[in-house]
Amino acid sequence: MSTNNISSAVINRLPRYYRFLADLLREGVDRISSSKLSQRMGVTASQIRQDLNNFGGFGLQGYGYNVKFLHEAIGKILGLDTAHNMIIIGAGNLGRALANYADFENLGFFIISLFDSNPELEGTSVRGIPVRRMEGLADFIKENHVDIALLCLPKSYAIETARMLVRYGIKAIWNFAHIDLELYLPSDVLVENVHLSESIMRLSCKMARKDESERPDAENE
Amino acid sequence: MSTNNISSAVINRLPRYYRFLADLLREGVDRISSSKLSQRMGVTASQIRQDLNNFGGFGLQGYGYNVKFLHEAIGKILGLDTAHNMIIIGAGNLGRALANYADFENLGFFIISLFDSNPELEGTSVRGIPVRRMEGLADFIKENHVDIALLCLPKSYAIETARMLVRYGIKAIWNFAHIDLELYLPSDVLVENVHLSESIMRLSCKMARKDESERPDAENE
Repeated sequence: MSTNNISSAVINRLPRYYRFLADLLREGVDRISSSKLSQRMGVTASQIRQDLNNFGGFGLQGYGYNVKFLHEAIGKILGLDTAHNMIIIGAGNLGRALANYADFENLGFFIISLFDSNPELEGTSVRGIPVRRMEGLADFIKENHVDIALLCLPKSYAIETARMLVRYGIKAIWNFAHIDLELYLPSDVLVENVHLSESIMRLSCKMARKDESERPDAENE
Repeated sequence: MSTNNISSAVINRLPRYYRFLADLLREGVDRISSSKLSQRMGVTASQIRQDLNNFGGFGLQGYGYNVKFLHEAIGKILGLDTAHNMIIIGAGNLGRALANYADFENLGFFIISLFDSNPELEGTSVRGIPVRRMEGLADFIKENHVDIALLCLPKSYAIETARMLVRYGIKAIWNFAHIDLELYLPSDVLVENVHLSESIMRLSCKMARKDESERPDAENE
């Protein structure tokens, strides 16, 4: 099945479907109607039908969706049918926190090494995953199959380090530095940025708007 | 200025504008045209004009945007003109990593305490911020002005703990557990979820689609 004509908005929603379907599987639910799934996910049933119709034939009128089949099909679109090896660049608090997330392994993402420029961290490990020095990075990438590099560095080092990773052959970067990394890299390098500060700003924005709408003179503005 | 009629899509983009404007300020740039900002941000100039026109009068034909004014105005909409006190529930690796992010303070988000159910962590601290026991949580919230609780707990504890926080008076939660927390809480509680596993799935989805489109028989499917 080709997925290249599915809109990026739908693609962006697939991980959330996948998560809910995994929960249903764990609960032993075999099939679910779009209306039940709609209640659970807090989106409209018509949105669900529209999104899932992209993949054709998952839902049957009067029967609902086959949870296992849908979970597997979406997992395949998300690339979860193949395992991914990852390395973490930067073994500070965030790098170590991510290395400790065993959850990623359940999805087939395996962290095989951390790297840090601090020589004192060499030989230490996080949950059995070794921390190596940056000097060994090029050889490590050559000798191991590394699919994704996680960038857990301050903004000031991020671009330079990412370009180095690309020179060493890395084609996908999961970036935690406060920067839109794709703007600085060749277009064939895939980047996903996690902007934690933008997330907290969205929350405080909601708070400010709620305060505003609750003020007694709100209508007069 | 009332912001309640601005679409949530625009609101979601504001933190990114704010970040780029902050960079420009640091570089000493006073004003910038929509086309220059467009190049820098990798979005169209017309998108920028449409988004920023929502706030009226920021851009002047032939002059461009006043960076400082726009930065301040957007900051105000994002609620960054007031400081926010935060507590972190769960002092594991992720909670500690977030407590170590001094960056949040630059935006006016101050972490004033961590809480953990593990009695052995009581009396320890992260970057000078004390870790307290969960037993003291209710009193702490009563005696301190806490605006936001960060939830860094496993999924299995998240709902129960969030409901407890709400009973203690918390109105905004920044949630890192793999769950859409707002589905389980009263509608007046503001929630922002960070789903790291969905982010990595979006990256692997891009990788799978790229592999697919690069296969020689791609057109035949």
